Amino acid sequence: MKVDVLTLFPEMFGGVFGTSILGKAQTKGLVSLNAVNFRNYATNKHNTVDDTPYGGGGGMVLKPDPIFAAVEDILDQREEATVPTMKAPRIILMCPQGETFTQQKAEELVQEDHLIFICGHYEGYDERIREFLVTDELSIGDYVLTGGELPAMVAIDSVVRLIPGVLGNETSAVTDSFSTGLLEYPHYTRPPEFRGMKVPDVLLSGHHLNIDAWRREQSLLRTLERRPDMLESAELTDKERIWLEELRLKKEKSE
Amino acid sequence: MKVDVLTLFPEMFGGVFGTSILGKAQTKGLVSLNAVNFRNYATNKHNTVDDTPYGGGGGMVLKPDPIFAAVEDILDQREEATVPTMKAPRIILMCPQGETFTQQKAEELVQEDHLIFICGHYEGYDERIREFLVTDELSIGDYVLTGGELPAMVAIDSVVRLIPGVLGNETSAVTDSFSTGLLEYPHYTRPPEFRGMKVPDVLLSGHHLNIDAWRREQSLLRTLERRPDMLESAELTDKERIWLEELRLKKEKSE
Repeated sequence: MKVDVLTLFPEMFGGVFGTSILGKAQTKGLVSLNAVNFRNYATNKHNTVDDTPYGGGGGMVLKPDPIFAAVEDILDQREEATVPTMKAPRIILMCPQGETFTQQKAEELVQEDHLIFICGHYEGYDERIREFLVTDELSIGDYVLTGGELPAMVAIDSVVRLIPGVLGNETSAVTDSFSTGLLEYPHYTRPPEFRGMKVPDVLLSGHHLNIDAWRREQSLLRTLERRPDMLESAELTDKERIWLEELRLKKEKSE
Repeated sequence: MKVDVLTLFPEMFGGVFGTSILGKAQTKGLVSLNAVNFRNYATNKHNTVDDTPYGGGGGMVLKPDPIFAAVEDILDQREEATVPTMKAPRIILMCPQGETFTQQKAEELVQEDHLIFICGHYEGYDERIREFLVTDELSIGDYVLTGGELPAMVAIDSVVRLIPGVLGNETSAVTDSFSTGLLEYPHYTRPPEFRGMKVPDVLLSGHHLNIDAWRREQSLLRTLERRPDMLESAELTDKERIWLEELRLKKEKSE
């Protein structure tokens, strides 16, 4: 997979792209990550990439021309001659108005060959970028950030770790909350007692049926308590549904 | 504000902490950002900070002792003698099981004097960290990431930009989607025509009442189309509510 990021702050990406899973995925040749400063595509003598909004109001708006030019330069450089089957890229605008990014979206994007992320910083985007250039608009959550750089890193991390061969054994077995549909059960490791805080006896018992039952129960309880919305789509047995319903009624009664 | 981040990958933070708003906020003395490698607090000879889970299963679990020790070292170093009014820190675990981070949470956290973020990487956390050490558990969204580092950066960026004096004029006037309760209207800047794509006439008209009306309408339309859930809590006039309801009915009919 090829990933390009258009940004005014390429220096923000070095530490993240070079470390851990993203760094290893590049070393293994499974992904190529590249941050491009679209200021290099400014056409005026002061290299400006933004301007005041038509119609007045404060703030600055990113001009269409440098971003169109930067994307087109990336498209020109694609090795379509050597990789004729390479799919057309997804051109993704990170913005608060975008579709909320989810694990499902990460699983969709990992099927692609080439992702191009566009990150604004402070500024709004000229609407023509949104309307005529991009294929997707994504938001990582309902909070305001300084720019699209951190959201792009988040989306890239969640997609790249899904590329086959990227994750080694060190990670694969930790159950992923958003894959199983339930929140994880509590984990414990050595020491068995730390400053008087003890590991639950059942985990030290060596009785695997009891351990599995305890973990499933804890997972259900935690999901009921923190994210009851997730229970609606989780795979539950009839017995579990009845038990959770009883717990919910009991809780309502005591409140 | 003082912000400490416990991580096994402090090198991930340099590019983000040193750039743009976070860099400037530090230069202005408004925030102190510090990434601490909690491997320095490992007590065994191999400096391991994780171990296999009690009760079996794959994956690794972060041990309680290095993280407790790292937090306590930070607490010992607080300048409580010189700043006697400094509030007790919020100790925040970034994890998929946490409360979903929102703009409201950012506005709550900016009231604090000291935030300590704990970032796991691959591993689960020993439950005793969660139960006896942390004050908050936060998740930035429903997707799986390699570690808590990017989520911590996201939370820190969204909080620090709210500290009075951090944002200059360059940003303050761009309307924030999650502050007004509606998605932003489209922005346009020069050129008025780019490859045949034109700026809407109304924005070039100089008629400010018409411009304001167009922008409000576009903001409502975009929110209706993309995030109808936001309309429930947005401040709307009766006329706007009726108009939106008519549009919704028309849309349902045509589908």
